Amino acid sequence: MREIFKQEMQELATGLVTMADHVATAIEKADQSLRERDLQLAEEVIDADDRIDELERQIDDLGISLLARQQPVATDLRIVVSGLRLSATLERMGDLARHVAYVARGRYPEHALTGRMRDVVSEMGAQAVKVGQQVYELLKTHDLSLAAVVEAEDDVLDRLHRESFQVLLDEDESLTRQQVVDAVLLGRYLERFGDHGVSVARRISYLVTGDTANAVHVPMSQDQPGQTSERLG
Amino acid sequence: MREIFKQEMQELATGLVTMADHVATAIEKADQSLRERDLQLAEEVIDADDRIDELERQIDDLGISLLARQQPVATDLRIVVSGLRLSATLERMGDLARHVAYVARGRYPEHALTGRMRDVVSEMGAQAVKVGQQVYELLKTHDLSLAAVVEAEDDVLDRLHRESFQVLLDEDESLTRQQVVDAVLLGRYLERFGDHGVSVARRISYLVTGDTANAVHVPMSQDQPGQTSERLG
Repeated sequence: MREIFKQEMQELATGLVTMADHVATAIEKADQSLRERDLQLAEEVIDADDRIDELERQIDDLGISLLARQQPVATDLRIVVSGLRLSATLERMGDLARHVAYVARGRYPEHALTGRMRDVVSEMGAQAVKVGQQVYELLKTHDLSLAAVVEAEDDVLDRLHRESFQVLLDEDESLTRQQVVDAVLLGRYLERFGDHGVSVARRISYLVTGDTANAVHVPMSQDQPGQTSERLG
Repeated sequence: MREIFKQEMQELATGLVTMADHVATAIEKADQSLRERDLQLAEEVIDADDRIDELERQIDDLGISLLARQQPVATDLRIVVSGLRLSATLERMGDLARHVAYVARGRYPEHALTGRMRDVVSEMGAQAVKVGQQVYELLKTHDLSLAAVVEAEDDVLDRLHRESFQVLLDEDESLTRQQVVDAVLLGRYLERFGDHGVSVARRISYLVTGDTANAVHVPMSQDQPGQTSERLG
């Protein structure tokens, strides 16, 4: 019984790492498909999202089965409950990568964006790719210092997101309606991707330290205060 | 022990109904603040979101404490795990209502939108208000037929969302940059609000029927297929 329990707890951890690996790949390819107008890459991201959803289902089944059969307590219970939440967050990050790929595919063979707008959104994409890699590392290592870095660096995405609104609202900036629409959506997807990265970082901190003040109450899909949509967008 | 258990399970259910009540009020006021340029109402929504977050924390604490101390199995386990997920979804719906209020506040004393664009987004707002009320009813009654209605009616929000993109992309439609930005964001917030309503409906169906095919694997914050952001936006 105890052996099976340990083995299933290990499976849960491995499942999350695999999921994060898929998410990191998805955002990387989505970003590239957008920058390089690569239709095939966009299609790959869209098709691969099913696999991420499937992994979430497996992790959920395993977690709920663990709760039902093994009735874990203390740290083990914390790990299982966090696992269920992490899988939901990773699933959502996968969706957001897919959304980026949809925009790339929808505009093909054109670039979705041009000029300054493209530059800012490309910077956001690069930062999101970094978050994807960090989240993967975090789930592998449970490294608290990396968790702190992810939290702190979310400012970069927020700053770029605000910058994207400045460009959008600059009437001298020549943009088609479609470009304005795409830029708003892409900005939102990438900013949310970063928010979810912070959510993962906080949950990992909670798992490692058990410090509830820090992480137990991270809403599933937290939003940063200081609403860009109010201030600039 | 058994008495306390029953009492705490009841508290969990009541907490979710209270949360849904707050969310229904939030989207109603947010919608009205936008339609009527009502600054005070917008402020109320923004301030009241803390209470929704607080309720989520309480439900989470209770759910995790129930898992740890009472080690529920079968139906009871399903109720607790679903409760944790429902609270996360409701918290997110509250955030989206707050986002709508931010836009209303940011544009005050002007209307955020005008003309056809305002009409379509107002229709979306009215539909989201309806979803908020239905979700509240659902959590109170666990009525399967209402759950089916919420799922089916999500098409209305999706159709209106597509319509909003048609207006946005019509270059004859006179819109400032700010209006385009606001309309994209509001459309996205309201569409997501509806998606989360569907997620609640599926989880309630799962709770009532135990039919996993139907509801256990609802991603935390599911997106509808047939991406509007690709097709029109």
